[in-house]
This record gives sequence, C-alpha cells and structure tokens, in this order.
Amino acid sequence: MQKGNISVQTENIFPIIKKFLYSDHEIFLRELVSNAVDATNKLRTLAKRGEVKGDIGDTTIEILLDADAQTLTIRDKGIGMTADEVQKYLNQVAFSSASEFLEKYKDDASIIGHFGLGFYSAFMVSSKVEVKTLSYQEGAQGVTWTCEGNPEYTLEENDKDFRGTDVILHINDEDKEFLENHRIQQLLDKYCKFLPVEIKFGTRTETVTEGEGDDAEEKQVEVDNIINNPSPAWRKQPADLTDEDYKAFYNELYPFSTPPMFWIHLNIDYPFNLTGILYFPKLGNNFEVQKNKIQLYSNQVYVTDDVKDIVPEFLTMLHGVIDSPDIPLNVSRSYLQSDSNVKKITGYITKKVADKLADLYKKERDNFISKWDDLGVFIKYGMISDEKFYDRALPFTLVKSLDGTFTPIDEYKEKVKEQQTDKYDKIVMLYTHAPDQHNTFTEAAKNKGYDVLIFDNVIDNHFMQHLEQKLGDVTFVRVDSDTVDNLVQKDEATESVLNEDEQNTVKGVFEKIVTDKGSSVITKALSPEDQPVTITRPEFMRRMKEMQSLQGMSFGDFPDSVNVVVNTNHPLVAQKLLKEEDEGKQQEVADYLYKLAMLNQQMLKGADLTAFINKSLDFLK
Amino acid sequence: MQKGNISVQTENIFPIIKKFLYSDHEIFLRELVSNAVDATNKLRTLAKRGEVKGDIGDTTIEILLDADAQTLTIRDKGIGMTADEVQKYLNQVAFSSASEFLEKYKDDASIIGHFGLGFYSAFMVSSKVEVKTLSYQEGAQGVTWTCEGNPEYTLEENDKDFRGTDVILHINDEDKEFLENHRIQQLLDKYCKFLPVEIKFGTRTETVTEGEGDDAEEKQVEVDNIINNPSPAWRKQPADLTDEDYKAFYNELYPFSTPPMFWIHLNIDYPFNLTGILYFPKLGNNFEVQKNKIQLYSNQVYVTDDVKDIVPEFLTMLHGVIDSPDIPLNVSRSYLQSDSNVKKITGYITKKVADKLADLYKKERDNFISKWDDLGVFIKYGMISDEKFYDRALPFTLVKSLDGTFTPIDEYKEKVKEQQTDKYDKIVMLYTHAPDQHNTFTEAAKNKGYDVLIFDNVIDNHFMQHLEQKLGDVTFVRVDSDTVDNLVQKDEATESVLNEDEQNTVKGVFEKIVTDKGSSVITKALSPEDQPVTITRPEFMRRMKEMQSLQGMSFGDFPDSVNVVVNTNHPLVAQKLLKEEDEGKQQEVADYLYKLAMLNQQMLKGADLTAFINKSLDFLK
Repeated sequence: MQKGNISVQTENIFPIIKKFLYSDHEIFLRELVSNAVDATNKLRTLAKRGEVKGDIGDTTIEILLDADAQTLTIRDKGIGMTADEVQKYLNQVAFSSASEFLEKYKDDASIIGHFGLGFYSAFMVSSKVEVKTLSYQEGAQGVTWTCEGNPEYTLEENDKDFRGTDVILHINDEDKEFLENHRIQQLLDKYCKFLPVEIKFGTRTETVTEGEGDDAEEKQVEVDNIINNPSPAWRKQPADLTDEDYKAFYNELYPFSTPPMFWIHLNIDYPFNLTGILYFPKLGNNFEVQKNKIQLYSNQVYVTDDVKDIVPEFLTMLHGVIDSPDIPLNVSRSYLQSDSNVKKITGYITKKVADKLADLYKKERDNFISKWDDLGVFIKYGMISDEKFYDRALPFTLVKSLDGTFTPIDEYKEKVKEQQTDKYDKIVMLYTHAPDQHNTFTEAAKNKGYDVLIFDNVIDNHFMQHLEQKLGDVTFVRVDSDTVDNLVQKDEATESVLNEDEQNTVKGVFEKIVTDKGSSVITKALSPEDQPVTITRPEFMRRMKEMQSLQGMSFGDFPDSVNVVVNTNHPLVAQKLLKEEDEGKQQEVADYLYKLAMLNQQMLKGADLTAFINKSLDFLK
Repeated sequence: MQKGNISVQTENIFPIIKKFLYSDHEIFLRELVSNAVDATNKLRTLAKRGEVKGDIGDTTIEILLDADAQTLTIRDKGIGMTADEVQKYLNQVAFSSASEFLEKYKDDASIIGHFGLGFYSAFMVSSKVEVKTLSYQEGAQGVTWTCEGNPEYTLEENDKDFRGTDVILHINDEDKEFLENHRIQQLLDKYCKFLPVEIKFGTRTETVTEGEGDDAEEKQVEVDNIINNPSPAWRKQPADLTDEDYKAFYNELYPFSTPPMFWIHLNIDYPFNLTGILYFPKLGNNFEVQKNKIQLYSNQVYVTDDVKDIVPEFLTMLHGVIDSPDIPLNVSRSYLQSDSNVKKITGYITKKVADKLADLYKKERDNFISKWDDLGVFIKYGMISDEKFYDRALPFTLVKSLDGTFTPIDEYKEKVKEQQTDKYDKIVMLYTHAPDQHNTFTEAAKNKGYDVLIFDNVIDNHFMQHLEQKLGDVTFVRVDSDTVDNLVQKDEATESVLNEDEQNTVKGVFEKIVTDKGSSVITKALSPEDQPVTITRPEFMRRMKEMQSLQGMSFGDFPDSVNVVVNTNHPLVAQKLLKEEDEGKQQEVADYLYKLAMLNQQMLKGADLTAFINKSLDFLK
C-alpha cells in the first residue's frame, strides 16, 4: 500500500478569487478597511504592552479617492509590515488560514482580521494594486509591493516616513463606479459605519500646488469628517444608556423612521459571545416592508442584513443589530444552518424576546395593551412557528373586542363562557374580519348578548386555527357564518308565525329569484326584529376556500357557498309578501329584499347594482 | 527591485471545499454523476476513433444505495483510471483547472467534466471516499484510492475485473438524509433527469446470499429502471418534433400542469452555443407562482432554476429549458452579470421571443387574440422594461373593450378618434379596472357613444402611464373620474333648469350632509337622464394615491379626494328636493340620494349601510 498527502497547486490564485470567492464586488472595501482596522488594533495592543515606544499619535484610517489618477487608497497608521512580513503575508496565499483564523481570533477579540483571503479581493476591482508600507519597528525600511492581478509581484524599497500601510487600488475600467464619491460614501455607510477605529473619507481636489525641488507637485486632499461611530450603543453597558440613547441609536440605524416601541439589549459571553440591540418597531399594516432589517456584525464589521438563517423567521420582523464573532462568516448557507453555535444563538434570542414581552406585560400592562396592534402580528407569528414561544406567550396573548377592549385569552374565555358555550361544550369565539362589512351581523350578535372579536390581520386565519388545535375547548365562528340564533348552537327554536304550507310558498317565491350556483334558500322562524333576508357563509366552506386562495391553489374552484335565509316571522315576509296577490309584485318585493341582503354581504355589483339603484330612485319618486 | 511569483499553499483543501465552494451539500451527486457521464463519453469517443478494442458493451451508470453499509456508490463503465492517472487527477488538486477547463471543453462539446473541483465535493457528505477503478487499457491493473477527508490518502491494487470507476461514499452521520431512497430519487430527478448517458438507480436488498469460498457473501442489488431521458426534446432538431412531442416534453418538465399555449425552440451555434425550448404558459391570475420555472442546463447537466441574471426579468414568466455551455457555472452572481456571453444570450432570447409573437400575430391572428388574456401581462411587462421589446411588440399590442373585442392599439386610436378627442387634441382612452363596480359609469359612457376599455391587471397602471409617455397623443381616463359630460373635455355645456339661487340652495342642502374630509359638493346641469348624484374620483389624485400604495409608501397619507356632483337637472333634485318645504324631509331625500351615489362607488359601509338598508325596508313597508 502506498500513502501520501494530497497536494494543492495553483499557478494563479486570481481567477479563483474573482469567480468563486465573493458574490459581490463591492465587498472589497469592507475587506480592506477591516484589514486597516486590524493593523491599527494590533498597534494599540502592542502599545498597551509597552512594545511600541512613545505616543502612537493619530491612528485615523483614511480613504482617499483620486478620480484623476483613477485610484482609491486605504491608508492606515497601524503596525505596518517589514519586507519579510510582506513576503509572508502577501506573497504566499495560505489557504488553510481560513480555518486557522476562526480559531485564532478567539484569543484576542479586538482583532478583526479573520476574513482570511480578504486582501486579494482587491483584485476583483483593480488592474493593479500597490501596497506601500512601513513597519512600526524602530529603524524599519519602507517597502512597496506591486501586483497586476497575475502571479507576478515586484517588491522595492521606498521612502515612506510614517508607520502604517497604504493600499492603492488602480480601479479597473469595468469597475469605474468605485471611483465615484457617492458610491464609496454608500459603501462606507453600509460596511464601515460602526468600525472601532475612526475613519475619514476624502476626495482629492483638482488643484495641484506648484513648487520647486523634489516635491514639486503636491496633491491636495480634502478630508471630510469622521464617517463612522467607533463606539456604537450595542457595545456599551445597558446601565450606561438612557432611553434617549437607545432611540438615538435607532435613528442612526434607520434615519427618518418612526421611533421603536421598545428594545432588548443582548449581552452574553458564554457559551457564545453575542451583543446587540433588538428593537420592536411600530409595524403598522405594511409589515412585509419592515422585515429583514436586522443587521449582522462581527466585532463591529458589517456582515449582512440577511439574517434569515440565524434568527427565526418570525423575529426577522424586529429591527436592530446583532454582533457575534461566533457566527461563521463568508460560509455557505448550508454550513451556517448546521452550525451548533448558530442554533444556540437562535434559541437564546427567542427566549430573550419572550422574556422581555412577559416582563412588559407584567410591569407595564397599559403600555403593553396600547401597543398590541403592532405587537400582535409578531407574537401570533411566533406562536404559530415556535412551540416554546407559544407556551411562553400564551399568558400575554390578547384578543380585541369590537368595543376596543383587550383581554388576555384565558380571561376572555371565562368572560364569555356562560353566554357563548354551545351544545358541544365548546366556547364559541365570535369574530369579524371587517367590522365595516359586518355591521348588521355584529349588531344582531350584540343584541343577543354576545361579544364579537376583531381578527383582521392576514395572519389571523392561521392563528385561530392554531388556537383551536392547541386549546381544544374553543371554536372560532365568523358573525356572518349563520343567522344569529345559530351562531352559538343551542337547540333553541323560535316559534313560527307561518304554517308549513305558507313557509313553502315563501320558499318557492325566493327560489325563483335565487338562481346562483352554490346558493340555497332556507326558511327560518327568526325574531320579527331580525332582517327579513340574511345571506350567510358557512364557516367550514369559507375557511376551505380561504386556505386554498392563500396557497395560490385554484383547482376544485368550487363556487361561493352561501345560504339565503328567509325570516318567515318578519312582517315584510309574513304579511306584505305572502299577502300580495299580484305575482309580479310579489316577485318584485322578494327580489328587493334579496338585493338588500346581497348589499349587506357586498355581493351586489355591476348591472344588478345599477338596477337596484334605479329601483330605489323609483321608490323615491 | 525584486520579482517573484505569488505562491499558493494549503495543507488541507477540505475545509475550504466544505465551507466556501458549494452553497448546497446536495450538489455532490450532480458533480459525481457528471464525472461518470464524462468518463463514459470519453470511452465512446475513443471507441469511435477505434482506440478501444471490441464492443464497449453496456455503459449504463449505476447509483447504488446501501443503507446497511451506509454507502452510496456511483458506478460508471467508462474509461477508468490507471494508478498514474489516479495520482494525477485525485492527488493533486489543480486549482487553475477551473479556468483551463472552461477553455478546454470547447474542443469537444460532448465532454461534460468542466465542473473542476467536482470530485472533492464528495467530502462534503462523506467521512470516507473510496475510488475503485480499472482503466480501459489492455492489461491494466485495478487500483483503490481511499481518503478520509484529510490530506492523507492510500492507494493499493485491487482485483476489479470490469472497466470503469466506482466512487463509494461512506456517508457522514450528519448527512444521513443521503442514505434515504426518496432523497436520492429526488436529487437524481432534479440534477440528472436529462444526462446523456443512461442511469439506473438501485437499492441493495436486505438478503445476503450464503455460499462458500472467497465470495461467500453476495450483496444482491435490486436495480430499478432507467431514471433519465438521455435524449431530451431540446437537443433534437425542430423538424423532427411534432406539437405532441413538445407538449409531452412540457409534461415531462412540469407534470400535471396545464398545457402551454405555444413554444419557441432555441438553437444557435454562433457566436455562442445555446439550445432550449421556451414555453408560454397559461398565466391565469397567479402569475407570480408561475415565475422562475425556467431550468438552466449545461450540456444536459442541470445547473439551476434561478435564471434571473441570465434571462431578462419579464421573460422569467416563461417556462422551459435553456442549455448553454457558454454560461459560466458555479461562479458568483456579479461575475455572471458582467459576462459578455450572458449579455449576448439575453439579447438573443428577447429577440427570439418578440419574433415568435410577431409571427403568431401575423399568421394566426384569431389564436393570438384568444390568448391575449394570458399573453398580455407578459407583453406589457416586457414593453415597460425593455425598450427594444417595446418597439417590436407595439404592432401586436391589443386593448380589450368592454364588449369583449380586442383591437391593436393603433387601430383603436383611429376607431375612437372622432368621438373621443378632447379639446387639447388628445385621444381619450376611457377605461375601467372593474366593470362590476363601474356599471353605472360605463353605461353612461356607452350612451354617449364612447367606447370603454378594460384594464384590470396589476401591471396596467404602470403600462398606461408608459403608453401615455411613449405615444404622446393619448391619455387614459377612468370612467368614474368625472361625470360623463366631462370625461372627454369638449367645452360643451348643458343648459341648467335651475337658476343660480336655486342651485345654491341645492348645494347648501348637500353640503350639510357631505361632511367627509376630501369630499367636495359640485352642482352641475347634466342630462335629466343622468344620475341625480354621482361621486367621481379625479384621475390625477387617484393615480398619485395608487402609485404611493404600490410603493408601500404611506407618508402624506392624504384622504380620498372625491367630488360629489349633484345633477341639478334631475327631476328628483330640481323638483322633489327643491320643492320639499319640510327641512327634515328635504335632508332625508338628499341623504338617500347621496347614499345611493356612495353605493355606486362601493363607499357605503358599516353602520351607514345598515341604516340605509333599514331605511329602504321602511320605504317598502
């Protein structure tokens, strides 16, 4: 048997970096500025240990754009490199470093540079890269490294006289966008806003200073203000922050947006390291627009705003920042999902959120209730998708009655139990999804002593179904699913004014008019005070249809199933209609009553509506 | 100055492959089966050249699942490898091959293996990989290569007696899903359905044959039928295919779906190589669901069903297959977007689609018109997003009148020009988005001799705006945006029955009733046949609001702006209302007329609707 090691060879690293490694060209700026931060932090660490002599002075990182020269320069005043270090770090692509780095940074959390191949991303946008560097070490000699995106490099001495590294990118023709001021500003804003070292962004002005001697030409650079906040709120201690500070930070993240309702400051060291602030936004109606706003950082370096594999789906409605060096970066999605740290982080965040809500409900009930319209969607979504969250959230899950009062669901069950328990011993929760459309129905229910809830969110169908399953002893019934006597089924019957023959006559008259597929005429002895004709939509069939349309399904496509219930005790039916001897006029009355019932269910449209309106005008004349 | 080459080193390729290279674990099966196809095709090529002696016999690729042994085997009967070849191909990871391969395959399009690092993807799901191989060369010695996902390998001789290669994956504990029959079936169906070599999928049965001698244990394998179609329709010549063949292939791609309306067979060799069939599906209403169904292949190897960077957005509504080895694979999105071949391909497909539509319109006008409801969305979307497509499509862009007729837009302009040109010399295109809701308005327009169009798709707002800009001489006006006399502004006035004082009295009565913010009362001398009260929604304000809500914006949030137009020539206004001396009754009449107008605009809701219905019942009594 023969043994050996698999060898990895490549003459040219660049095609791989360009094609495989990064999904986005713009990422180069994050990588290079991160390296600059890294170099600066390393210097600071050495200075603390007394390994650098004297004051380290200014360490501001400078980003310099020179549109004339078509260069973008990233300048740090960090540790710099000696010629040997350049040989080691730039001329040998150490692929294995990817995993080594993930281990290494743990020793010193203030050192960022675990992006591995970061430096080479410069070649995604550059035809040539120059690195001018001078090590912090005493007596060091500056060197310039140059490479044009092929395996060849050159290395020569220079006369750089200040410690640190300039990375000068000669931007490709195809990537000219990165020579535009506003584009770089945009990238700095996206990737570098909270980096822990101060960063300035400057553009070279057009003026060239004339002069004599060797330095005849002086490029004059206009340096703007610091563009980042090196100490963002989430890195501070909660005790050091006021409500105003939290709100100000929210505004820093999302300028011009409505202030958040409240927030959670995350701060954990073990078994993983995570800081951050999560905000509960005012959701309003367009919560889809508000989703996916959480930003993920790693030691203050922006990573992504796509946190859907790190944070449970329902929590993506929250806003804010999560910062964790324990979330592996630049890895594939499938790797991320199976990472055990990520799983722990997910659980931790979910628990923290539930705890915060429970705490609010306990300590600031009125405040909590006043925010339910915004919180509800979020909590319901969580309860449906996460079993643990369901258990934690049930005690503070509220239902909203038509009169505007909010009641915890358990309390509500007690409240309506007596009036609204049906013959199967289920508590019937009456609801409407649109009070505006169900006024006649909700009024009838109120007159019977029932309470009506409002469930008007797109998630509510699903949520009610979920509650029915989990609670077992409740059933949700929409107010228009049956006539009011039958909403809570109790085996009571109102006595009929008409005899059976008369009832059949009435039924016959209506059956000539009600010809829609899926509509059935039912005669019923209701209270004379109830409507003469009511159109109801049986709960079960309606839910089936809604479910179908939610899933974008259309097979089956069965028609709307409605009952046209004629109240044979209503005077217009029992007297006017029945006693009318002219068959044409009898039909006319029945038709008008039917059209009014259709109006009540938003079913009267088109030519029928026009005809009805003209008929009404005739009555008026 | 010093010069040199950047060297790339890694002791361990595996962490990189696992973490960076593939976004999906499941891809390993595509890579390995592609390699098997590659090996088989190479053998066939050699046989054609007479470099293999005798009949090559069976070349079916076999995928064998052994849940007991926890292995998945990919077996080909292709060229196999000698010990030297194993050394070369498996023990030296040649990174640069990525770009070399892209060049190389061009010479022999039947050879697939340009996935580069494909083989190593096996280690994403395996704790150990064995390769048992025997070269086709006469007198070759079989060898077994083994590696456990670290840089160490072993190589030893074996007694394999049939040409070809077995790749045996010992599946990881975390990837047990790949030991399930249905999961592998699913992957084969996704990635291998149209590979050009026959593939069998088998599962080892539980039975173990007993016996004597060295081969005492015989694993009995149950081999199923061929699971792929090695000659899919798109690789054939259009002349060899009937309509039924195209429909059958559609069914193969999307089982159980509605047959497509028609299709385009793509076939181009120069300046790039591309074959494929694009189908126009019946879109119906839920066209979002139908989007992104085009599958991309590279020499019959499935690549992705996410073609949004290869095909213009509006064409993603089409279905079918695109096969092009000229689309770079496994590269980042940003690389793809800037690739010049991809740009050419995009242009080619767009042109082909426009040509096909133009051809259909010319040769099968009735057929084309009958399909407009499905085609329209697609064409409109294309016209908005692609200038060239707009120019190509304008001649066959149809508008649909309320009576169901379809007319090309240019012809339609001629047709309505005389009646519907306004005083600014614009042709007024009257439309409704919901005939059901606008019946009274559309009837009024028809009575005046106008034609009304239906624009009821979500894209139509945008499309009309686009047409107005491009055509210059038309303006779209919704039928409820003004009273009928003013829809096409012409400076004509109907004589008023009432004098100014009387008109002011009428106005005063209504202004007491119409108290909604945003509603203004206007008195107008219209025809006595027109409605007594009409609520109109001025076009400009309505469009502004619609635009806002489409963009999810809510700032400004100005109220619905409507005009309540009172027709002072209508007898109910001019006589009944004006002559009523009881102020209460006068109000009652005005209110009822206003409520009828609200009904006509779907504005009567909640308690107001209940009150209106009760009032109507009172009238009946």
